[in-house]
Amino acid sequence: MQYPLSADIIAQVSQLIAQRDNEALKLLLLDFHFADIAELINELNPEDGTYVMKLLDIEITSEVFTEIDPDLREQILKNFTPSEIADELEEMDTDDAVDIIAELDDEIQKQVIHEMEDKSHAADIVELLRYDEDTAGGLMAKELVKVKENWTVSGCVREMRKQAEHVTRVHSIYVVDDEGKLKGRLSLKDLLTAPSRAYIRDIYIPKVDYVTVHTEGDEIARIMQKYDLEAIPVVDDYHVLVGRVTIDDIVDYIREEADKDYQLAAGITGDVESSDTVFKQTRARLPWLLIGMLGGLGAATIISNFEMILTSYPKLLIFVPLIQATAGNVGVQSSAIIVQGLANGTLKGHLMARIFKETSVALINGISLAVIVLLVSHFVFYTSYLESLSIGVALISVIVIAAIVGNLIPLILNNRGIDPALATGPFITTSNDIFGIFTYFLIAKTILGF
Amino acid sequence: MQYPLSADIIAQVSQLIAQRDNEALKLLLLDFHFADIAELINELNPEDGTYVMKLLDIEITSEVFTEIDPDLREQILKNFTPSEIADELEEMDTDDAVDIIAELDDEIQKQVIHEMEDKSHAADIVELLRYDEDTAGGLMAKELVKVKENWTVSGCVREMRKQAEHVTRVHSIYVVDDEGKLKGRLSLKDLLTAPSRAYIRDIYIPKVDYVTVHTEGDEIARIMQKYDLEAIPVVDDYHVLVGRVTIDDIVDYIREEADKDYQLAAGITGDVESSDTVFKQTRARLPWLLIGMLGGLGAATIISNFEMILTSYPKLLIFVPLIQATAGNVGVQSSAIIVQGLANGTLKGHLMARIFKETSVALINGISLAVIVLLVSHFVFYTSYLESLSIGVALISVIVIAAIVGNLIPLILNNRGIDPALATGPFITTSNDIFGIFTYFLIAKTILGF
Repeated sequence: MQYPLSADIIAQVSQLIAQRDNEALKLLLLDFHFADIAELINELNPEDGTYVMKLLDIEITSEVFTEIDPDLREQILKNFTPSEIADELEEMDTDDAVDIIAELDDEIQKQVIHEMEDKSHAADIVELLRYDEDTAGGLMAKELVKVKENWTVSGCVREMRKQAEHVTRVHSIYVVDDEGKLKGRLSLKDLLTAPSRAYIRDIYIPKVDYVTVHTEGDEIARIMQKYDLEAIPVVDDYHVLVGRVTIDDIVDYIREEADKDYQLAAGITGDVESSDTVFKQTRARLPWLLIGMLGGLGAATIISNFEMILTSYPKLLIFVPLIQATAGNVGVQSSAIIVQGLANGTLKGHLMARIFKETSVALINGISLAVIVLLVSHFVFYTSYLESLSIGVALISVIVIAAIVGNLIPLILNNRGIDPALATGPFITTSNDIFGIFTYFLIAKTILGF
Repeated sequence: MQYPLSADIIAQVSQLIAQRDNEALKLLLLDFHFADIAELINELNPEDGTYVMKLLDIEITSEVFTEIDPDLREQILKNFTPSEIADELEEMDTDDAVDIIAELDDEIQKQVIHEMEDKSHAADIVELLRYDEDTAGGLMAKELVKVKENWTVSGCVREMRKQAEHVTRVHSIYVVDDEGKLKGRLSLKDLLTAPSRAYIRDIYIPKVDYVTVHTEGDEIARIMQKYDLEAIPVVDDYHVLVGRVTIDDIVDYIREEADKDYQLAAGITGDVESSDTVFKQTRARLPWLLIGMLGGLGAATIISNFEMILTSYPKLLIFVPLIQATAGNVGVQSSAIIVQGLANGTLKGHLMARIFKETSVALINGISLAVIVLLVSHFVFYTSYLESLSIGVALISVIVIAAIVGNLIPLILNNRGIDPALATGPFITTSNDIFGIFTYFLIAKTILGF
């Protein structure tokens, strides 16, 4: 039932917009899922996007707005009056509404809130605006189904029918006491199978996973994934049930975090796509290249300080790329394992035991590579015995050092509250370049005795 | 309600096992969620793990088995008889049972299936064993709630109560015709709010997203994420409803895929953790280091072939690390953006337009770096004007070439059906090392005229 978005359909829509053929346009989009319309709008320019969004029914556009690219959304919403934006927000779940209103200027935010007719919905949105967007408070929706422990099953079903009108998906039913404090949960299955006169307090499950409004997104993702939850209730500091986080938001969160880690490892800051402007891409990429450049200049300084190399053993210089590439690769491998271990909570055992194991792996890898390189350098590149020995010993040392450095840097960053994924990018390759080349020449100097 | 797994508790459990104090052990674990018990078992050795698993009730252990580390699970199950394993599988959902039985030897598989008392459950498991584990067939569970279109709401609720006994979470109710073909879905909300005499055919939603048994995991994840689904029905080639995939399995799938991409980018094959053996880690890491080594030897060959550099312009060699690091960083950045674009389906526009934009970004970055390096090389490292010019021009060229290569390699791999994430690791840095150094010396040779 999915509509693959062909270039054909995009062209057709653009043409209908140009012709201002509203009827044909509405008919064409009638059967589209809102997520497909969002994908389509993402392909249009802001003017055409605005045109389509103003044409379609608000039940559709309120859903589409939650799915389109945030940059484009901002541009399209510039063409909407505060009252029109308020109408859109009224149709949305509070968690989606707050994401959108948070992007607007303070002044417009106030006007939009003022224009909203459903004052309790508006108050919910204002409440959610208070929280940091990566905490449970920022991720939760106010919409949920809650019942009181002193209700009967039949009373509960009646009340739930009312509440369910406002809730897209029911998931769990939460049980609260008279003060609104979270007591437990009720599964729909239990409700379906319980006698209708039973009291909720006799059938509810008092064991319920929950988070507080301050819980970080990472922690929520970890809990929901570990316990296979589809929704988790959120309580405030007084244990009062104030909202719930649903798995679809957490799926998006997990994806975004994974993308961010991946980008950091690749030396890109911010969420950059190939469709972003040249300026935005440059800004995300240049700083990392500058770090790499500084490392390269550092390496140049080291080499030129070992003057004897340049004059007496220039052949050693032809193996610099090998030393450097190996140091970089080993460092990235080691740090990536630690970064993932930190992210998944699978990092076990004592630091010294891990370093010992890492060193063992490095020694096996190092000796394997060194034997090959030692033979190749001597028989193919005609380096002297001592030169070959220098290269081999240096390679092993560089691999061991890079492995240990790669292991420690993410841990140090993590301890200082910095995202350890930073460590796997150009940061670690650059520091390993410098360490590696310095070690190489130091060992060569020792063995060759200059 | 989460129990953070302290070293204290692990020590306590180990001690109780050593003392064979079954009562105290059972009492201690009584309040633990099965996911927490799984985390605990992961910390024990296989013997102690087996001891705990044989001690606890099967309702608990059947859940715990689905959550523990697969390597450890295999070792623990070696201590279980086929009949004991069969008992565990009877308690599990079919999708979990099939994951576990698939890990056993063929002979033991047969015995376990033979020992199972619930023959229809056994038949379901055998059916699921047929499918590739990364397709909908391999990810789906047979457990679901389905109703026929010619039933009434009250008949439906009666029947559902029966079916719901076997289904952990209800999610959607699927509507089928007399031949079992998928017709649509019914939300619990609709069922709660519809008059009890209404027919299902009058209230069901005919629009339903579905996948076939052959749909790949990536595609299922994309659809479920895009349309915010918590479960998706799976049909066979005749459109008969045969199972459903739930979001918790897809969350695990997304996480695993993200981890895999990240590891490939870092030059690690296979799912390696810091707790894995030295041998397993070496096997996952050494091949990539060998690729890097070959690249390094290639670079050495190139340098030694530009003999004049070694003899007349040795100063150019001190900038090799800079050229190499920059080529590597740019290549990884460019390829990472393409790999993510391919994974998220956000890669837009024509190839030539993207290459043009990538080249613009590269030129801006290249010129910025080249100006700095040109000045530093001349005034700090005292290279001649022409040498400095060579370094600057080479740096710009290398950045542009690395950007284009980084852009193309993932696309080429993807077109050939190879995971494009392969491109971002040592693979791209190695090829860029060689390209970069070759370009550097070629430009130097041209400008300096040797």
